[in-house]
Amino acid sequence: MAEQAADSPVRRRRGRPRKGESDARERILAAATEEFGENGYDGTTTRSIAARAGVDPASLHHHFGTKADLFAASIDAPLRPDIAVPEILAGPREHTGERIIAYILGVWESPTVRPKALVILRTGLGNKHAAPLMATFLRRELLERVAASLNLPDAGLRADLVASQVAGMIIARYVLQLPEIAAAPVDELVTRVGATVQRYLFDPA
Amino acid sequence: MAEQAADSPVRRRRGRPRKGESDARERILAAATEEFGENGYDGTTTRSIAARAGVDPASLHHHFGTKADLFAASIDAPLRPDIAVPEILAGPREHTGERIIAYILGVWESPTVRPKALVILRTGLGNKHAAPLMATFLRRELLERVAASLNLPDAGLRADLVASQVAGMIIARYVLQLPEIAAAPVDELVTRVGATVQRYLFDPA
Repeated sequence: MAEQAADSPVRRRRGRPRKGESDARERILAAATEEFGENGYDGTTTRSIAARAGVDPASLHHHFGTKADLFAASIDAPLRPDIAVPEILAGPREHTGERIIAYILGVWESPTVRPKALVILRTGLGNKHAAPLMATFLRRELLERVAASLNLPDAGLRADLVASQVAGMIIARYVLQLPEIAAAPVDELVTRVGATVQRYLFDPA
Repeated sequence: MAEQAADSPVRRRRGRPRKGESDARERILAAATEEFGENGYDGTTTRSIAARAGVDPASLHHHFGTKADLFAASIDAPLRPDIAVPEILAGPREHTGERIIAYILGVWESPTVRPKALVILRTGLGNKHAAPLMATFLRRELLERVAASLNLPDAGLRADLVASQVAGMIIARYVLQLPEIAAAPVDELVTRVGATVQRYLFDPA
């Protein structure tokens, strides 16, 4: 880690990393998800994550900064909303709600992504200190972009209502595993929940 | 604790307790909420709860049975859905969605109830073992009653969709505290989210 980028580690991670660096980043993110899952937010240290990833603590700090930055990055990793959200918002307006739900379910239905995403969600909701990080992530990556695309006086509340239904669907299906919503085909949820999201976005107040 | 009721502790707690018993029950429930909040579900024992409540462990088991029973009872305590849900479902059908949201927000807006309810919600969502208990509670107290009142082939999925929006609203407003939904007046949420619940319940599929 001889080189030092001029911009901060947090901003830096938004760009596409080079090859060798990308391996270390991925190992660190995987280790972070495991540590947060096993020991919770409070019981995890950047040192324990670095040890599990087999990297130097200095390398971890170079890539991710603080524990809070690392938790925020581990939320980002399975979703890459910086790529998806602009695409979703650019499509035909009358199906925006359905595209949002189809995208979210597409991510969560992936058997490689879901276990990691579940750990992050449990950590983010179960802990007083992690919840604001998850809220900041949602606001920055999803809600502000959705609201900006709406051009309505109550765009902020509309975006928050969308987030409430998306979060609730994920929790009901994957965390609480309520039987009927857990067993429902993806297409059925895209139609029914997508209609709710569509109304929150565009219906007259 | 000389007397032993014929029915189990778990069934027994559904009735109205007598005066002296009611104090012990309330102390135990308050202690349980504090212990779950401080130490999480895994870090809490019935022994630690009994010690904090100043009661004999045998008394705790008499009232509540196991740790899982006690967690389930601590979910019940702030809500008393056994009283509220039948009333909500009995009112005029065209405002059922609004009544559900008004009731839930009425409970959560109470400054004495909210801190306890938050602890229970964090514990229930943040822990692998507590989540099924919370799901069972929701199913037994809310979803099955709502579904039974609908008399539709997809009543179970409709009830789960209602639960997803209710859970998501609570999380967005009180756990993540997304700014616009956290600042919204209760009446505004009753109208907007109530309309979603109403559609999940009664709209043609």
